[in-house]
Amino acid sequence: MTGQSIIDRFAALLGPRGVITDRDDIAPWLTDWRGRFHGAAAAILAPASTQEVAAAVALASELGVPLVPQGGNTSMVGGATPPADGSALILSLRRMNRIRSLSPDDDLAICEAGVILSHLHEAAEVVGRRFPLSLGAKGSATIGGLVSTNAGGTQVLRHGTMRALVAGIEAVLPDGSVFEGLDALKKDNRGYDLRQLLIGAEGTLGIVTAASLRLVPAIAARAVGWAGVRSPADALALLRLAEARLGDSVEGFEIIADDGLGHVLSHIPGARCPIATRAPWHVLIEVDHADMREPGPAERLEDALAQALERGIAVDAAVAANEAQAQAFWRIRESLSEAERAQGPALQYDISVPVARMPAFMVEAADAAERAFPGTTASSFGHLGDGNVHFHVRAPRGTADGPAWIARQGQAINAFVHDAVVAAGGSISAEHGIGQMKRAELGRLSSPARIAAMRAIKAALDPRGIMNPDKLIPRAGEG
Amino acid sequence: MTGQSIIDRFAALLGPRGVITDRDDIAPWLTDWRGRFHGAAAAILAPASTQEVAAAVALASELGVPLVPQGGNTSMVGGATPPADGSALILSLRRMNRIRSLSPDDDLAICEAGVILSHLHEAAEVVGRRFPLSLGAKGSATIGGLVSTNAGGTQVLRHGTMRALVAGIEAVLPDGSVFEGLDALKKDNRGYDLRQLLIGAEGTLGIVTAASLRLVPAIAARAVGWAGVRSPADALALLRLAEARLGDSVEGFEIIADDGLGHVLSHIPGARCPIATRAPWHVLIEVDHADMREPGPAERLEDALAQALERGIAVDAAVAANEAQAQAFWRIRESLSEAERAQGPALQYDISVPVARMPAFMVEAADAAERAFPGTTASSFGHLGDGNVHFHVRAPRGTADGPAWIARQGQAINAFVHDAVVAAGGSISAEHGIGQMKRAELGRLSSPARIAAMRAIKAALDPRGIMNPDKLIPRAGEG
Repeated sequence: MTGQSIIDRFAALLGPRGVITDRDDIAPWLTDWRGRFHGAAAAILAPASTQEVAAAVALASELGVPLVPQGGNTSMVGGATPPADGSALILSLRRMNRIRSLSPDDDLAICEAGVILSHLHEAAEVVGRRFPLSLGAKGSATIGGLVSTNAGGTQVLRHGTMRALVAGIEAVLPDGSVFEGLDALKKDNRGYDLRQLLIGAEGTLGIVTAASLRLVPAIAARAVGWAGVRSPADALALLRLAEARLGDSVEGFEIIADDGLGHVLSHIPGARCPIATRAPWHVLIEVDHADMREPGPAERLEDALAQALERGIAVDAAVAANEAQAQAFWRIRESLSEAERAQGPALQYDISVPVARMPAFMVEAADAAERAFPGTTASSFGHLGDGNVHFHVRAPRGTADGPAWIARQGQAINAFVHDAVVAAGGSISAEHGIGQMKRAELGRLSSPARIAAMRAIKAALDPRGIMNPDKLIPRAGEG
Repeated sequence: MTGQSIIDRFAALLGPRGVITDRDDIAPWLTDWRGRFHGAAAAILAPASTQEVAAAVALASELGVPLVPQGGNTSMVGGATPPADGSALILSLRRMNRIRSLSPDDDLAICEAGVILSHLHEAAEVVGRRFPLSLGAKGSATIGGLVSTNAGGTQVLRHGTMRALVAGIEAVLPDGSVFEGLDALKKDNRGYDLRQLLIGAEGTLGIVTAASLRLVPAIAARAVGWAGVRSPADALALLRLAEARLGDSVEGFEIIADDGLGHVLSHIPGARCPIATRAPWHVLIEVDHADMREPGPAERLEDALAQALERGIAVDAAVAANEAQAQAFWRIRESLSEAERAQGPALQYDISVPVARMPAFMVEAADAAERAFPGTTASSFGHLGDGNVHFHVRAPRGTADGPAWIARQGQAINAFVHDAVVAAGGSISAEHGIGQMKRAELGRLSSPARIAAMRAIKAALDPRGIMNPDKLIPRAGEG
């Protein structure tokens, strides 16, 4: 555990509000929010400005004290949980929660790392714009964490991941120097793009302290539809049809297996199937317009769905008649994880493959997993248009002790699913990153060239190894 | 000069067609195409496959022989010219000129590094798609060079630079290992994005051997318009008006100073001003539709220009009545550099600032340069919507010896213009990269944090310093 004399040095830099040592105050931040990783830290550093972050990192570098950057602590992979041995301090960005500027003319917002996503949503709305990235944890997740994990969500189809929305970055590098890259230049060819390197680096190369983010016009009118289809291949055909007819106003396109819908209908009070005919697969589509042009999104979506029915791509379809119904359609999608948990223990994978291969992957990988692990049921749901689904393998019916099943079968099932993903040319982490959870699998499944390059970059920029230790980079022996 | 015994080792690897040693065959590739940089090399290596590139790089690493990757040799900054001391060999990618796949369904093309841009344009057209990046050197520039320099051009406003169009990369790293990143995943959060690092690295971190590139629908209908405006600020207002009314179908938006237009009218046979009223500034707008919907682009552009006239944003405007006229409008824009050269010696800068600041920069920086260097005239033209213009400072009228003027004044004017760019939060290289030409200025004008990070990454991935020596990374003493 880091000693008191070291903590005193940080307190001298950051003042009493800048160093938290009360055990009860620290406790909630030592465990990831899913309760799978547990760490220890003698203090949370809470700098209030970029200069204070820089001073803290310079001191940590001098003393060789590792730092674990933390925003909303909503990592799905233990990416913000300190090591268990107490060797590191947490560096929280939550006090840096200012929106430094918000310019509707330039469609840009400059946010400090600790700004909570939903606060940015609200601020953008006030000036007639929106920040088009959203996810379940929006009430806690912070801009710094979203940048550092290249977060995704349900609007990637149209607007891309965080990488596409970041126009500039300010960061403190591991030696305490400040990288000033907030200027939003559309063209800039001055060598290695350090911003791109910091996006998705999970805090292992430095601490993002602020970002320039792109805004888009507010939604003036939206329509949400539901369609039943026979297969993921038909769902993809429906997406292509929708894109051809509706262009990039298709903002959401989610695929849901009928068994997943069934779990929602069983476990979520008030949930109803939006269409009369149950089909093996379901699709939720959202179409957004930034203006009030005619025909509006509902009429255009109805037209597209009618075509899909006519061509036999969809077996049934409905467009929400009002905003309450639209929200009810989305609630089904958003309740899937909760309903699955109520259904019983499961292993969950956040994976991607090239979009064109996804329909076959969804069917074949699920069949193969069920054959390889008798009694399990496998299915997937999510962002078909991004080639990214959440692939679940559920424990055999009646499994009482979930953790015991996972302890017994988890590693083998992980390897099986990840191998299938790699064989399909995909990624074992589409959205959630690597953190602690997937570090060894990343090592096992990556080419030596990729791992060697990552290790070399890490060692070059963080030679003392103080930035977010034990995250992302496979250890020796892990690949 | 690299010795014969070393060349023999490469010949043993690559065969007789893979090593060019004839002086006459080598000569054209030792000088950049603008004739400003001159190098020496005992041989050009010309591998025919990724495996051969990997073998050649591994051998070069073993022997400590630097390699200068070369595609079409169209660098504007001496980025593909070997050092003058003959210590390096050129590694040409031109034999790797296969389009490995072209999938209109996935909107993807996998091209080897030596594919010439215009060949990709033609191949995409055949399958009803297009690759939406074009520039003057398209008949020579190759995919590998375009990726390695993050090339821009006239379609960036809508489709982005090469960075936005690259879906995957295959590259040989400086130790001869192959980075296999061609799979086009829309979401992939497996750590540091090595593809982003290689894009724009100018061959200093490895050799791009192939890329997956995004295609877009072919143009079904286009309209090209011309407007006269009073100022760059009005030009930007016109762009905003056009975007609001025409959405992202605005594919080209170029600003031209009236004196530049005058040079074209004086020097280019057959050139005519598209509008009756001369204005201080001119704008060329292109609107493209991928389908034949009504109203078509000409009607919509006429409508937008009519609004601009009504609101006093434009003083005169015209839409090309047919394709021949549309091409004539574009020819004015494309002839600007040639006309400027005919006008007399000039220093040319490829710079960017944030879009909103560009109108003021264009006026104020030109005024300031003319005051600081009496007799000179300064003006700019180019991609206003990208915040990127080509800024020219012309020698005083009657300057007979251009090179002598540049030798006398060049460094001071360079520093003056670059300082103004940095003061406006901009980049001294928007499109062309750094190469040899801007290396020292990059060092002078970048923060120590940025330069240190770039040097650390270079040393980490290329510890023997064999990849494109003396390019991009400022030398000791250069920052």
